[in-house]
Amino acid sequence: MVSGRFYLSCLLLGSLGSMCILFTIYWMQYWRGGFAWNGSIYMFNWHPVLMVAGMVVFYGGASLVYRLPQSWVGPKLPWKLLHAALHLMAFVLTVVGLVAVFTFHNHGRIANLYSLHSWLGITTVFLFACQWFLGFAVFLLPWASMWLRSLLKPIHVFFGAAILSLSIASVISGINEKLFFSLKNTTRPYHSLPSEAVFANSTGMLVVAFGLLVLYILLASSWKRPEPGILTDRQPLLHDGQ
Amino acid sequence: MVSGRFYLSCLLLGSLGSMCILFTIYWMQYWRGGFAWNGSIYMFNWHPVLMVAGMVVFYGGASLVYRLPQSWVGPKLPWKLLHAALHLMAFVLTVVGLVAVFTFHNHGRIANLYSLHSWLGITTVFLFACQWFLGFAVFLLPWASMWLRSLLKPIHVFFGAAILSLSIASVISGINEKLFFSLKNTTRPYHSLPSEAVFANSTGMLVVAFGLLVLYILLASSWKRPEPGILTDRQPLLHDGQ
Repeated sequence: MVSGRFYLSCLLLGSLGSMCILFTIYWMQYWRGGFAWNGSIYMFNWHPVLMVAGMVVFYGGASLVYRLPQSWVGPKLPWKLLHAALHLMAFVLTVVGLVAVFTFHNHGRIANLYSLHSWLGITTVFLFACQWFLGFAVFLLPWASMWLRSLLKPIHVFFGAAILSLSIASVISGINEKLFFSLKNTTRPYHSLPSEAVFANSTGMLVVAFGLLVLYILLASSWKRPEPGILTDRQPLLHDGQ
Repeated sequence: MVSGRFYLSCLLLGSLGSMCILFTIYWMQYWRGGFAWNGSIYMFNWHPVLMVAGMVVFYGGASLVYRLPQSWVGPKLPWKLLHAALHLMAFVLTVVGLVAVFTFHNHGRIANLYSLHSWLGITTVFLFACQWFLGFAVFLLPWASMWLRSLLKPIHVFFGAAILSLSIASVISGINEKLFFSLKNTTRPYHSLPSEAVFANSTGMLVVAFGLLVLYILLASSWKRPEPGILTDRQPLLHDGQ
């Protein structure tokens, strides 16, 4: 029953996440001229796609590894490796997304890092990098004591959720900014709500819905790996892994 | 010791919250011409101040009522009333902040609710209204059973934090949008980072810092009111209130 609801949530999460990425690709392809890797505005178009994919969808999915019922029993190391590897993939997508916007700016002699969107975005990526390296050093490498791990775990969990919240704020301000730029001198400006504006606003709201669902499963659901020594009604008293 | 750290966090929170409001007032007063209530752009200037004050600072403070050590023991009703009253104050400030922007738009024949900032902002206020009325009906009025209250409590706590996260995203996208509007045709545009831009961007980052500190105290700290029947080392076995 618990598993059934969990997999239903995963299905909803997968659909929402795919829609976030596909909607962003469609927006850039259909209304903004598609993609290239040559310093032009078409190179910029990779930026929203890769940030939504990396900082929101892959990041969100990677956060939820320990909510998989399979991860609740048996050795934790393979799940830690999966958690770290998926987050690394999210981080690589994010960095490529940053390269896309910085190269476009530098090529067109446009200033970098002046808007609040960029200040918050770069802070979020910096926090993500710190979180990944600290998580790797403390929870994966063997040197850290159990005391240090127990001390850092709630901070790691909190910053995991906090970084996702900041990613959502960055994405929302980014989509908003892009629409004000793109729909400035057209016959149908942003304030007349042309179809591109409705579509891109809806994409932003989808990102919010996806983020909230991840945070709900992460923080408020009962699908948590039981701590060692704590038995729940979901965990059998004896099984092969113990 | 626990109390000491809590009050130190409250001091930091109070300072950060006051700075968020004062910085927004200063931005509007010094660079945007000050305040009025006449449908002009000076009426709009109330919007950022009241939204930061209502949806972030008062809302954040009101969320933390049950983290006060005084609320951990004795009857819960006075604390529930305080929690509801402070949130009602936050909601009133928010509504007046919305009146300011809608009146300015209608007076100047500017379209309402077209940007992603406004879509997310109005959704957040709607969720806040639902949360307040549902909270009032279920947790304050006497009709609801303990079963219903236990069922709704984790949802109420989750949405409390989620609404604050969405408020932060709305504020960030709002400050970003306002700066692109205001610093468009000036001799020192946004991308040249004039002092107004640095100041307003910093105000946005302060709002983020305040929001993260509230979320940390709310979700990750150990300063939680113990549930009935659960004794912690902070709660004496016998005291006057029991």
